[in-house]
Amino acid sequence: MKAIAVDPGAGQPALVERPRPDPEPGEALVRTLRVGIDGTDHEVIAGHHGDLPDGADELVLGHEAVGVVEDPNGTALESGQFVVPTVRRRPDETNEFFDRGEPDMAPSGEYVERGIVGAHGFMAEYFTSPAEYLVPIPAELAPLGFLVEPISITEKALEHAVASRSAFEWEPDSALVLGNGPLGLITLAMFESVLEFDRTYCLGRRDRSHPTVELVSELGGTYVDSRETPVAEIPAEHEAVDLVYEATGHAKHAFETVEALAPNGVGVLLGVPEPWKFEVDGGRLHRELVLHNKALLGTVNSHRGHFEAAIDTLAQLPDWFTEELAAGVYDLENYRDAFDAGDEVVKTAIEFDGV
Amino acid sequence: MKAIAVDPGAGQPALVERPRPDPEPGEALVRTLRVGIDGTDHEVIAGHHGDLPDGADELVLGHEAVGVVEDPNGTALESGQFVVPTVRRRPDETNEFFDRGEPDMAPSGEYVERGIVGAHGFMAEYFTSPAEYLVPIPAELAPLGFLVEPISITEKALEHAVASRSAFEWEPDSALVLGNGPLGLITLAMFESVLEFDRTYCLGRRDRSHPTVELVSELGGTYVDSRETPVAEIPAEHEAVDLVYEATGHAKHAFETVEALAPNGVGVLLGVPEPWKFEVDGGRLHRELVLHNKALLGTVNSHRGHFEAAIDTLAQLPDWFTEELAAGVYDLENYRDAFDAGDEVVKTAIEFDGV
Repeated sequence: MKAIAVDPGAGQPALVERPRPDPEPGEALVRTLRVGIDGTDHEVIAGHHGDLPDGADELVLGHEAVGVVEDPNGTALESGQFVVPTVRRRPDETNEFFDRGEPDMAPSGEYVERGIVGAHGFMAEYFTSPAEYLVPIPAELAPLGFLVEPISITEKALEHAVASRSAFEWEPDSALVLGNGPLGLITLAMFESVLEFDRTYCLGRRDRSHPTVELVSELGGTYVDSRETPVAEIPAEHEAVDLVYEATGHAKHAFETVEALAPNGVGVLLGVPEPWKFEVDGGRLHRELVLHNKALLGTVNSHRGHFEAAIDTLAQLPDWFTEELAAGVYDLENYRDAFDAGDEVVKTAIEFDGV
Repeated sequence: MKAIAVDPGAGQPALVERPRPDPEPGEALVRTLRVGIDGTDHEVIAGHHGDLPDGADELVLGHEAVGVVEDPNGTALESGQFVVPTVRRRPDETNEFFDRGEPDMAPSGEYVERGIVGAHGFMAEYFTSPAEYLVPIPAELAPLGFLVEPISITEKALEHAVASRSAFEWEPDSALVLGNGPLGLITLAMFESVLEFDRTYCLGRRDRSHPTVELVSELGGTYVDSRETPVAEIPAEHEAVDLVYEATGHAKHAFETVEALAPNGVGVLLGVPEPWKFEVDGGRLHRELVLHNKALLGTVNSHRGHFEAAIDTLAQLPDWFTEELAAGVYDLENYRDAFDAGDEVVKTAIEFDGV
């Protein structure tokens, strides 16, 4: 079967021929339909993040997939069921985090991630997976199923943010997304269409004529050009916000988030930057965190419950917006374009088989 | 009546004569028994924190009080009831935070604090207070009632910490207290005696022969001398911990906390430092927060529910430890000693009337 693999840090993704996998007991065989591409894929390709499977000399990419069950292989799934696979897998038999359905909380070394760390991904005509990691998705949403994994990342981040503010009455009505890449824009759409924040902001460093900036307005948000208004000046220029969602990986943003937050606000951090030393007014940030009960949370990955919530969310996003996201789906033969599309295409994905 | 007042930043606390207050409708008159002294009092005296009441030229100190109802004045309280007053008061009639019983979540400007910001404190032979801010305490605990306010600060911090980890299964078994001042030691005692962490650590910068360091061991904790083992090296020297409680006000500790935490851990920050610029490896801290789902929370003050919880906690602390804390109670005539006692006295308080 055809697959897209890379030797991380040493080359570009290539179309390769691999044997079609046979499902083990408890696994189903899935025919792949579409697989999305995100910043993590580009970091893996560049060799900045992730790892080859043991003994492998290439990694099959892809962690944002939707497929259809080809062979249930005795599991509770049915042939023809559309499914979205979760990403993390047990590194070995016993693992308390996986046992309780929280692989997203497992520390480094206690998981592999398909298409990222130590396990092949879903960019192949077929893949196998234990049935417990295959989340059913309704047929009408299957064409957009490659959006479920990124949405699930935000579902988790918001669940943790809300939990962190659950010891008091918290009624956020303003939110700021740092980053207008695919995850930032999807999150902005969730803030506007599903969570119904009164006021939303989205920060980027692109000109106002850029299509992704136009999307910010169309979604109902206010665009903030970080070259004109740094994060710390957003309260003076616009307002201090109840929730900040950081999706840039720009480490200074993690600290500036404290200054952008309103009292009792929470910032969720999702970027994964490289080491970078810089000066901060640590005294002021510390004081501000304390005197105004602010919180900063890091969150990574997501579990099956977040995928299920993401499917509900996907159904609530405006059609015009999901159509915009689906406009970047490329046929397998044009897979290189999916990796090389400029940032004017909001989101790209590769189609392995028609939905 | 006698009171202890100060002109913040311009002098030392002095014994002054003030008129005995008359309770307004809804207020009770309380005869003061004991009032504790903490770091905030010293910051107020130095003029680094707090503010005079409108139109006043001195501030009556004291926010850690216990007293007895002298005149219920038509409120539901009974004469002779021992009470502990909470600290924050409404700055004006309408305030949503006070309306819902969460004055601790009110931002700057939306509260006054008795003995700290804009309102006289409890270091006087009598004080008045709306009955809603007077928390009954059993007679047998009244001699230790000046410990309720500091314990309540930790009750709030822990409530927020636990809430922030409530979106997943979190079973912390190790905790680190930064600071072996009164609040640090009281918190360590709570960790050992009430919350029953398996392993606790307490960081300070005092020699191992110091009485407060001996208390750390007697409470069951491991002392960490920050001059030998900086916060960031605690995981290598001891272990990464599930919970960090920062009570030093040393701003670098807020950032180093991220490195001391185990995966999925939470650091609560309580210190109130001055501005201070320094360099951090912001990239590494940001990455570590995200990849290991770590959280940093600032928390300040406490509400009535935390005071009630603190009274339960006080009853559970070991007698030998509370006797140690009560050893620093000074008669009113010796009030200067209560402010000037060296750090070998764990905690000091002033007795206005015998319990």
